[in-house]
Formats: sequence, C-alpha cells, structure tokens
Amino acid sequence: MVATAFLPELWTEILVPVCAVIGIAFSLLQWFIVSRVKVTTDGGASSSGGSNNGKNGYGDYLIEEEEGLNEQSVVAKCAEIQTAISEGATSFLFTEYQYVGVFMIFFAAVIFVFLGSVEGFSTKNKPCTYDDTKTCKPALATAAFSTIAFVLGAVTSVLSGFLGMKIATYANARTTLEARKSVGKAFIVAFRSGAVMGFLLAASGLLVLYITINVFKIYYGDDWEGLFEAITGYGLGGSSMALFGRVGGGIYTKAADVGADLVGKIERNIPEDDPRNPAVIADNVGDNVGDIAGMGSDLFGSYAEASCAALVVASISSFGINHDFTAMCYPLLISSMGIVVCLITTLFATDFFEIKAVNQIEPALKNQLIISTAIMTVGIAIVSWVGLPSSFTIFNFGAQKVVKNWQLFLCVCVGLWAGLIIGFVTEYYTSNAYSPVQDVADSCRTGAATNVIFGLALGYKSVIIPIFAIAASIFVSFSFAAMYGVAVAALGMLSTIATGLAIDAYGPISDNAGGIAEMAGMSHRIRERTDALDAAGNTTAAIGKGFAIGSAALVSLALFGAFVSRAGVHTVDVLTPKVIIGLLVGAMLPYWFSAMTMKSVGSAALKMVEEVRRQFNTIPGLMEGTAKPDYATCVKISTDASIKEMIPPGCLVMLTPLIVGFFFGVETLSGVLAGSLVSGVQIAISASNTGGAWDNAKKYIEAGVSEHAKSLGPKGSEPHKAAVIGDTIGDPLKDTSGPSLNILIKLMAVESLVFAPFFATHGGILFKYF
Amino acid sequence: MVATAFLPELWTEILVPVCAVIGIAFSLLQWFIVSRVKVTTDGGASSSGGSNNGKNGYGDYLIEEEEGLNEQSVVAKCAEIQTAISEGATSFLFTEYQYVGVFMIFFAAVIFVFLGSVEGFSTKNKPCTYDDTKTCKPALATAAFSTIAFVLGAVTSVLSGFLGMKIATYANARTTLEARKSVGKAFIVAFRSGAVMGFLLAASGLLVLYITINVFKIYYGDDWEGLFEAITGYGLGGSSMALFGRVGGGIYTKAADVGADLVGKIERNIPEDDPRNPAVIADNVGDNVGDIAGMGSDLFGSYAEASCAALVVASISSFGINHDFTAMCYPLLISSMGIVVCLITTLFATDFFEIKAVNQIEPALKNQLIISTAIMTVGIAIVSWVGLPSSFTIFNFGAQKVVKNWQLFLCVCVGLWAGLIIGFVTEYYTSNAYSPVQDVADSCRTGAATNVIFGLALGYKSVIIPIFAIAASIFVSFSFAAMYGVAVAALGMLSTIATGLAIDAYGPISDNAGGIAEMAGMSHRIRERTDALDAAGNTTAAIGKGFAIGSAALVSLALFGAFVSRAGVHTVDVLTPKVIIGLLVGAMLPYWFSAMTMKSVGSAALKMVEEVRRQFNTIPGLMEGTAKPDYATCVKISTDASIKEMIPPGCLVMLTPLIVGFFFGVETLSGVLAGSLVSGVQIAISASNTGGAWDNAKKYIEAGVSEHAKSLGPKGSEPHKAAVIGDTIGDPLKDTSGPSLNILIKLMAVESLVFAPFFATHGGILFKYF
Repeated sequence: MVATAFLPELWTEILVPVCAVIGIAFSLLQWFIVSRVKVTTDGGASSSGGSNNGKNGYGDYLIEEEEGLNEQSVVAKCAEIQTAISEGATSFLFTEYQYVGVFMIFFAAVIFVFLGSVEGFSTKNKPCTYDDTKTCKPALATAAFSTIAFVLGAVTSVLSGFLGMKIATYANARTTLEARKSVGKAFIVAFRSGAVMGFLLAASGLLVLYITINVFKIYYGDDWEGLFEAITGYGLGGSSMALFGRVGGGIYTKAADVGADLVGKIERNIPEDDPRNPAVIADNVGDNVGDIAGMGSDLFGSYAEASCAALVVASISSFGINHDFTAMCYPLLISSMGIVVCLITTLFATDFFEIKAVNQIEPALKNQLIISTAIMTVGIAIVSWVGLPSSFTIFNFGAQKVVKNWQLFLCVCVGLWAGLIIGFVTEYYTSNAYSPVQDVADSCRTGAATNVIFGLALGYKSVIIPIFAIAASIFVSFSFAAMYGVAVAALGMLSTIATGLAIDAYGPISDNAGGIAEMAGMSHRIRERTDALDAAGNTTAAIGKGFAIGSAALVSLALFGAFVSRAGVHTVDVLTPKVIIGLLVGAMLPYWFSAMTMKSVGSAALKMVEEVRRQFNTIPGLMEGTAKPDYATCVKISTDASIKEMIPPGCLVMLTPLIVGFFFGVETLSGVLAGSLVSGVQIAISASNTGGAWDNAKKYIEAGVSEHAKSLGPKGSEPHKAAVIGDTIGDPLKDTSGPSLNILIKLMAVESLVFAPFFATHGGILFKYF
Repeated sequence: MVATAFLPELWTEILVPVCAVIGIAFSLLQWFIVSRVKVTTDGGASSSGGSNNGKNGYGDYLIEEEEGLNEQSVVAKCAEIQTAISEGATSFLFTEYQYVGVFMIFFAAVIFVFLGSVEGFSTKNKPCTYDDTKTCKPALATAAFSTIAFVLGAVTSVLSGFLGMKIATYANARTTLEARKSVGKAFIVAFRSGAVMGFLLAASGLLVLYITINVFKIYYGDDWEGLFEAITGYGLGGSSMALFGRVGGGIYTKAADVGADLVGKIERNIPEDDPRNPAVIADNVGDNVGDIAGMGSDLFGSYAEASCAALVVASISSFGINHDFTAMCYPLLISSMGIVVCLITTLFATDFFEIKAVNQIEPALKNQLIISTAIMTVGIAIVSWVGLPSSFTIFNFGAQKVVKNWQLFLCVCVGLWAGLIIGFVTEYYTSNAYSPVQDVADSCRTGAATNVIFGLALGYKSVIIPIFAIAASIFVSFSFAAMYGVAVAALGMLSTIATGLAIDAYGPISDNAGGIAEMAGMSHRIRERTDALDAAGNTTAAIGKGFAIGSAALVSLALFGAFVSRAGVHTVDVLTPKVIIGLLVGAMLPYWFSAMTMKSVGSAALKMVEEVRRQFNTIPGLMEGTAKPDYATCVKISTDASIKEMIPPGCLVMLTPLIVGFFFGVETLSGVLAGSLVSGVQIAISASNTGGAWDNAKKYIEAGVSEHAKSLGPKGSEPHKAAVIGDTIGDPLKDTSGPSLNILIKLMAVESLVFAPFFATHGGILFKYF
C-alpha cells in the first residue's frame, strides 16, 4: 500500500492558485491605499484636508515650519522630481529590455537546439531513465517545453521587477509628503509600497509556475520526470533576468552614486542629493533599478530556482512515481502558506501597531522578520502534516532513501531559521548600534587606511556565523532528505520572501524620499524624519542582502544536486583530477567576476564624473542654483555604460557552464559549480557587510548621537573624511560586486541543470579525444 | 622481473649528502666573500683601499659627494645602525623562540600521545596496512619517531631562519657602503647574502632529512611504510615553525611599518626611514624577521612537506614494496640536483655578468629565474632517467596505477614551469613597468577610494592565470601519477628554491640598505642607488610570494592526498553532507584567519602609534634632531604585540584539524582541507598582488620617470596622498594576511596527515553517538 498525502489532490489544485490570487489582491489593495496620498496640486484640498478622515489621516496638520512655505509649490516640486526619477528608471529598464529581448531570443534558441540535439531531434518516445518499463516523452519535447518555460520565467521576472520599480517611484514622493505629517505616516506609505512589490512578486511567481505545470501536464500526462525537467527552464528564465537586474542595475546605481559623490561631495563640496548636482536624478533612479528591480529579480530567481530544484528532484521520488500530486506540490504549498503568513505579518506593521517615534522604526521592521518566521514555523508544520505522506522515499544519487514527514518539516525549518540567524548576524555587523561598526568608525581617527583595514577585517569576520548557519542547515536537510531536503530548506528560507522584499524595498523608497525632500527644498525637520527612515532602511537592506546570499547558497546547492542527478553522476570525488581542478577554477570565478564588476563600476563612474564636471564647467549659474543641470544626459550615460559594462561579466556567467560542460564534461563542471559556490558565498557576504559597515560608520559619525561619535565628528572633520572614503569604496562592494555573486553561483548552477542532458550526452569532448 | 632504477643505491647514498654539503659550502663561501666588506673603522684603510684589489674592488673610488663628508663617521654610523637592527632582530627571535620552545614541547607531547593511542600504546608489531602478510612496526614506534622527526624539522627550520636573519642584518650596512662605489657592487653584496640564506636553507633541509631517514631506517628496516609515515613529522615540524615565522614575523613587520608611517609620514610629515622616527629601527628589524626569517621558514616548510608527502606516498608504491632505494629517494635526488643547478645559476649573477647600470638590476634578477628553470629542466630529465625505473606502479586511492618515468619527468616539469609562469604573471600585475599598476596609479587622480577599488579589482584579476597554471599542473601531474605526481610537481616548483630565496632575500636586504643610507645621512645619490635596488627587490618579493603561494597550493594538495591515503579514505564525495559542509566551512577559514591577522596588525600598529606619539610629545628636541629617540622600546612593543597577537590565528590553524578530525571525522576533515585550499589560494594571491600593486603605484608616482607619472606627482600631491593610503592598506595584505594563508592551508594539511591514523581510529565521535 502506498501512503499518500492527507490533503486531496483537488484541494491542492484549488488552494495554491487561491493563495496566489489572494497575494496579488493584497498587493493591489496596498497600492490603492498608497495611491490615496495625492501628489497633484490641482485638487488643492486633497492634501491638506477634505472628506477623508480615515486611518491615513488626510485631516492631519502638517508640521509647523511648512506653513510658512508655499505648500502648493512644494507638492508641485515633489511631483516634478518624482516624474523625473520615474522616467529615468523607465527609460533605463526599457533600454535594458531591448537587450534582454535579444538575449532571450538567442538563448531560447540555444536551449532548444542543445536540448533537442540530445537524441538527435528525434520525435520518438523513449524509455524513462529511472524506470525503463515505462515510456517517456522525447528529448525534443523537453527542449521545446524547457524553452517555453524559460521564456515564461523571464517574462514573469521582468514584469515583477518593472511593476516593483513603478510602485517604488510612485511611492517615493508620497513618502516625502507624508513625512510632513508624521514619521509614522511616512513609514506606512513606504512600507506598504514595499509590500506591493513583495506580494506581487511572490504571488505572481507562484501563480505562473502553477499554471505552467498544469498546462504542461496536459501534454506530459504521466511522464512527470519529463514534465518537471522541462519546468526547470522556468528557473533559468527567472535567474537569467536577475543577471540583467542585479549586475546591470548594480553597475547603474553605483556608477551614478560614485560619480555623483566624487564630483559633488568631494570636488564641489555640495551635500548629497543636492539638486545642483547633474547626477542626482541618475543616483535616485539607480536606487530603484538596482535595489528594487535588481533585488526583486534576484530573489525571484532564487524562488523560481528553489522551486524547480525541489520539483525536479521530487519527480523521481516516490511522489513522482506514485503520482501523488499533493505531495509533489509540497514546495508550492509551502510558498502558498508563505503568502498567507506574510499577509498576516504585514498587518502587524500597517494596522495592529503604529509608529509614533523615530526609534520605533527599526524594531518594527525587525519584528516583521521575527513574526513572519515564528508564524511560518507553524505554517510549515501544517503543510508538512497535510501535504505529505507520513513516509516516502526520495532519490539520493543512485540510492533510495526513506524520509518521514517530520524530517522534511525540520528541513524546511532549518532553512527558515538559518535565514533569520543570517539576518541578525548581518545586522550586528552592519548596524552602528553595535561595537563592530563603532570600532570601524573609531579607526577613522588614524585615517582612511586603518578604516579600510578594519572594514575589510570586519567583512571577513562577519562570514563566520552565517557560514556555520548555512552549513548546519545543509547538514540537517541533506542528512534527512538529500538534495530534496536542501531544496526545501532553500524554499523555507524563501517562504517569507514577501515580507523580506517588503522591508527590503522599503529602504530605497525611503532613501529616495529623503532625496526628494532635499531637492524640493523642504525643511531640515522633514529631512531628519526621512533620514531616520533611511537609516533603518540601510540596516534592513543589509539584512536583505544577507538573506539573498544565504538563500542563493542553499538554492545553488540544490540546483547542483539536481544537475548531478539529471546528468547521471553518482559521485563527485575530490580525489580525481577533473573534479579538483574544477573546484580550484570554480573557486577562482567569483574573483574574476568581482574584478569585472568592480572595474565596470569604476569605468562607468569615471564617465559620469566627466559629464558632471563638464556640466559644472560649462553651464553658467549651475553652482549658484540659477540654472538647471541637464539630468537626462547623466541618466543616459549611466544607462548606456551599465548595459555595455555588464556584457563581459554576463558572458563569463553564461558561457562558463557551456564551455566547461562541453569541453571538460560533467565531472569538471560539478567541481566548478561546487567551487564557485563555496568560494562565492564568502566573498558575497564579506563584500556586502564590509560595504554596509563603512556606510553606517560614516552615518554614525555624521549623526553624532553618542559621546564617542561626537568625538569623531562633525561632518568635514578628518575622521569623517576618512569615513567618506570607506563609504565610497564600499558602494560597489555592497551594491554591485557582492550581490552580483548570488547571480554567478545560482545562474551557473541552473544553467548546468537545464543543459545537463546535453552535457551528459555530448559533453567532455576534450577527454574523449585525448 | 622488477625494474629498478639505473642509479645504484650506493651512488644515491653518496650523491644526496654530497650535493647537500656542496650547497652548505657554497653558502659559507658567499658569506665569506660578503664579510670582506668591512664596516669597522679601526682599520681605516680597509674600506677605501689597501691590499685588496680583486673583483670586489676595494680600491675603487667612492662617489664624489662622499668626499666632503667624514667617511669614518659615516661608516661608524652605519655600523651602529646595523648593530641596532641586528640586536632588535635577535631579541625578537629569542623572545619568539621561548614561545616556540613551549609550543614544541607541548605539541611533541600531543603528537606522541595521539599517535600512540592509535593502538592503545601497544608495543607489539602489527600486520602492515597494505600487505598483511608482512609485519610492521607498532603505532607506538611511529608515534615516537614522528615526534623526533617533528622536533628535527622544527629545529632545522628555526636554525635556518635564524642564520638567514643573521646574514641579512650582517649584509645590509655592507650593501649601503658598497653603494658608495657602484650600484653593481652593492647589488652583488645584497645578492650574495640572499644566496647564503637560500643555499643554507635548501641544503640543510635536505641534509637533515636525509640523515633522519637513514637513522630511522636502522630501526625500521624493511618497514618503509612505517618509516616514511614517521618522517612526515619532519614536515609538520618545519611547517609549524613557519607559523611563528610567517604569522608572528608578518605581524611584527607590519605593525612596525604601519605604526612608523602613520605617525611619521602622515602626522609629522617626515620622510620614510628618518632617524628621528622612534619606530624606524623596529621597521627595519621587521623586514628581517618578516621577509627573511618568515619567508625562509615558509618555503622551508613547503620544501619539507612536499618531500614528506612524496615519500609517504612512494613508500606504498612499487618503490617501497620492492625496496628500490634510489627510486624511493627520487624526491631527494630532485632537490640535490636543484642545489647544483642553483649554484650554476648564481654564478651568472655574481661572476659571469656584471651590473653596470640601475636598469640592469631587474633583468638580472629575472634572468636568474629563467636560467634556473631552463637548466633545471635538463636536470630533472637526467634525474628521472637515472633515478627511476622505466615503469612502476603507484598507489591511487585504493587502486594501482602504472607510471612511466617520462611521465614523472613531465609531472616535475609542469610544477617547475608553472612556478615560472606564476612568477611572471605576478610581476606583470605588480611591477610599475606595465599597465595594471599604471592604471591603479592613474585612478589616484580621483582619490583614495578609486585607488582602493581599482587595486582590489587588480588583485582579483591577477588570480586568473596563476589558478589556471596551478590547475593545469595539477591536472597533468594528477592524471599521470595521482598524488605522487602532485607531490613531485610541488617539488619541481620548489627545486630552484635556493635561487628563489636568494632573489627574495635580496629585497629586504636592499630595503634595509636604503634605510641605513637615509639614517646615516648619506647623500641623495647613494639613496637613489639603494632605492633602485629596493624597487627591483619589491618586484622580486612579489614574485617570491606568488611562488610561495603556488607551491603551497600544490604542497597542500599533495599532503591532502597523502592524508586521505593514510586515513584509508577512498573517495571524498562532494555529494555527501559531511564533505559539502566541510568544503563550505573550509572555504570560510581563510576569511576568519585573515580577519584575525589583519586585526592583529591593526591592534599592534595602534600600540606602536601611541608609543611613537608619546616619544615625539615627551622627548624634547626629537623633531629637531638634537635628541635621540628610544628605539628599543618600539622594538619591544612590536615584539610583545606580535607574539601576543599571533596566538588566536595560531590556535585557529592548529586546533581546526584536531577538532574537526576528532569530532566530525576524516570525511569532513577532507572537505575542510579541500575547501580551505581552493579558497585560501585565491585570497592569498589577490591580497599579495593588491598590496604589491599599491606599493609600486606609489613608487611609480614618486619616481616620476614618465610623462604620465609626472602628471600624478610629485610627492605630496593629492594623487600621491591617495597612493600612500593605498600603500598603507596594502602593507598588512601583502606582508601579513596574504602570505600567512600559505601556512593555514599547508599546516592544516600536514597536521591532518600526521594525525591521520588517530582520526581514522578515534575520529568522528559526534557521528558515532548521534
């Protein structure tokens, strides 16, 4: 007798899409609430009173200083800046999409041709790999469906990123305007907008995946192995868009930021976000395309890949063989539960509690993480209980392994909780409330050199606990349920993705809000409020990055396991020359990739510097504020430079698996994947945290809230100058080269997975002939 | 019929010690020649003429400007400074040796107890592991002899390092004095002194190892397996002293250097090596204890470990089983040939050609590398032809593998040539004659931040080709002859160690010579000559570091292979939870270790800064040059701080294999070793090259020899200040944390090898009980 899941198949078929639709509806509701804050001046009454006296308080008094100013003109100015940022971001994304389009068509063709060639484009059914008494669909079908899934994944990622960017640029000026009323109101606008992004992405990712599976199933019927192999294309699609989002967006944002700072802050000595700086709009656009669209596509990629890895491994487990659809959909059920849990969690920030003072912001955001993790633990227990048979077998590199449902529950939980640990360790090392950042700030006394040395050492040190957390979750999940366990652990970490993205997207929105306040010439009290929002956002951004890296590590290991299974490899033995050289070269790739991305930022920033200098030198009255700079040219330079500069690192990522697999075969490729994983995750964590620490060390000196901080400041003091140098060095580390490594390790793994049958058949030609 | 080597055993027994003795004699001869330059003033005639009109030209005229000065007082001042440096270095080393002594006794006890416990301290013979028809010596004997070998390795390393330091401090003032005559004469003194160090170390390492084998053989008789297992203690001894030399010495040298620079150059605006700086003697001492004693012990460790790894693997090959002593001694024959080849090579620099102009120095040093590699290729061919049977079998993780002698020749050659490639790539990325360093210098235009970003990117990029070179040599040697191939490839790379060390030690000697010239108040023309010597030394130091790292990678892989064989592991499968978490955590260790060493330098430097500031503030007339600073206190602070600060990183290295092996077992330990190897080698290369590039970018701006360089300078310009910041950051990277990683990866591997029987018997207790 075969044990099946408690939850009937019909219920699964209903529950998953219903949860996804609820997520999308919740996202739209948040958008609607945000949209009630008006940034138009035509209905003058709307922003200073009127019919609406609900929770969002349109009847509140604006803070006193504003009364002297012409309120109408401030709103008009905010609207104008917002439009400029939104147009800049849209223009960047559309330029990028042209390249994305070409890439997608080309790569879709590659997928089809390579996978189709596995059986010489035969249209005949073949015996299944894992049960040769049955017949499976031909490789050509897998090629075609993989290609379709690839396109669907790519399009979903692009759309989610685009909509996320839209809501972010829609919300930034609204946050600024609400900051005139109170910090709590401003917080809620920024947070709701982040939630729009989070829920939209999580829910649409789930929904499209779910529909794709059900549509493909019409063709594949009982051949679940083929079905879920084809589905892996979805992960590749999502992830390859992340390449554009993370790497391209990362170069964009830091080229603009570094370029603006080098001329504005250092040469011309004007403050950050000063409207006289020609690169200031490009800088604000960068926050949206890098941190919102980039981060979103990165996490979407992780989510899609983790789901695909879990599904492809499950398809050859007892679920797949017994056709237990509910158990098969366990990964999707986890994600569905995640949407519901995050929805409840969001209400804690938006409705159950209210932010009254500046120092409540950071706890509120951190509580989101804790609450979602706590509730999700219960949610996972429920899903594991109803969605899994009490005992089942999974495939473990050639052997079968019996797994209990409580073991799988633990697998998901270790991932979930490891994410939380990584988040809090990241916070400890990057928040200026704790000693590590304060020590770095203190080292600025002896100059920039010691600041850099201590900052680098801090980044290296911050790797230790996250790696132990990741190692522990790998050990538990791998021991219990082999690569399936690792895949669901990754899904566990990503199950609260909606909340994670909400607090993450909150950061750049607040950052932009501050920029708009500065540019619109609002009073310093407003600026103080937006700065407080931004400071909390800095820490959550670091947490988000830690989270993204941790999940990337688990995801790429799961993909690696799925690749190895699919390629028919049973051992990856370090004691063979092919594997050890793969490991060594793989461990080198993150360095090569980082060198490229750092150089890219440098080159793009230098172009920006030249343009900004040119404008300061040739536009009369710019420094005096009587003439307007040419923002559009700077936006264009950032756009063009980032697209051009992302080509070499993009090629490195996309071509390495193809070259290694084709010429050196699957063993060496396995080594390369393992090597780049274990090495890349370290550099990614250390680079992100080093950059975050420098940023906050600078902010610590600037804010000067303690005696110690005051002794280092004020702005312009020698220690502060040293801190600014550290901050500038950290920018490309924390926002470009560090997070881009997620893409490197995940994308190479998922690409290998998709092309595994090709490599297994035609790969390793060098060794065949020598 | 069993094929044996062409060379009879008796000849081997004679040739190896003869070559070693020739090496020692040659070393003493060089010392004698150097000693003929007098730094005493009692025999006034001796330094400005006299009976000696030989090649070393005591009858030369001194350069004109000196004539105005009181020559006697210059010589006296040089002698005085030299004595201070020598005493400082001796005092550091003796303090260090007290700790070394305690450590040695303690660790010798650990080795004896752990290894003795393998068979419960039984004194009975046991059946051999690889051939149970024979009886082998008990584990207790291996424990005892391993302990003795450990002590011998440690003592040899300590003695070689000490003597190397002695000759270096003996030669520095002599180099300065010879620089008054001509740059060629100064070069030759510095180079000969380096050769003393190189030959002494290579030859004594070989001789002691040879004698130890022969003495142990009296007890072990035909049990070569036990014999060569015991010999591995020699590698551990040599390598654990390198921990003190490299890490302790590295912290010392950079604490003094950074401390001196931070106060002297940046706060007080006095030049480098100014005698008013209280830390100036400590800085010069640091060059000797860090770059001479540290580098020497590092390479000695590599050499000892590579030999031991090759021998222990060979002992279970057909050589060991057939008792073919000549073939067994193939690694020693390679090293013997290396000494002869290096001797010939040295003559090219000292006797066949003469340096006439400043721009001939760097080519002369580089030619040393090329010449030694070319001749050594022939030497290896000869040794492989006479020292090996035409075909033999080696042990390949449970299987036997047939190897031809020409294949082993190729294994040694790939190592040798990979070393040369690594050397030249390192030179390309760190010499200011090429575009990478010039680009970094150019980035100083926009400030320290871009300098740091470009420097880090350069370091990352410089990893690519060396890793391919190492991977290629691993692939060739591993494919031909498994881990024996890798071990002899490492020996191939190290076969020209005498020349490598000579040109490496030349660097700090020249650096010190420049410092002495500055402190003795010699004319700027002398200083220019010593600066030219020093600049060439900078590049060769970088080459030496690349070389040390490359060989460390091969050595630790060979040790890893030997460990795995000895622990009875046949596969290290990445697709098992124990191995993958080992890999991940292992890849993290270099970051942890680097964080510690960088922090150590920072803390020690801050102590130095406080002391230097105190002296400037409290000693009246110090800045005016009328009062003498208290050099000795600074030397003491560096000494104490470096010893104290090396304890945490030292514990990390020494305890990790013990903890992992004992609690998690040999599979996880294998993962940790492989992970730290593939990750550590990247950080080591990138850190060394980044630091070297920053140093030379600064020198490029200072020297101002091209139009481009002039546009960035002169000293004190904004770009130059940015370059100084980069240089200061690079100091701990290139001289402490980077090279220390060699020790991490090698020492953990050799320690695992020595304790392998213990871990195989008693290890992994966590998994036994859970």
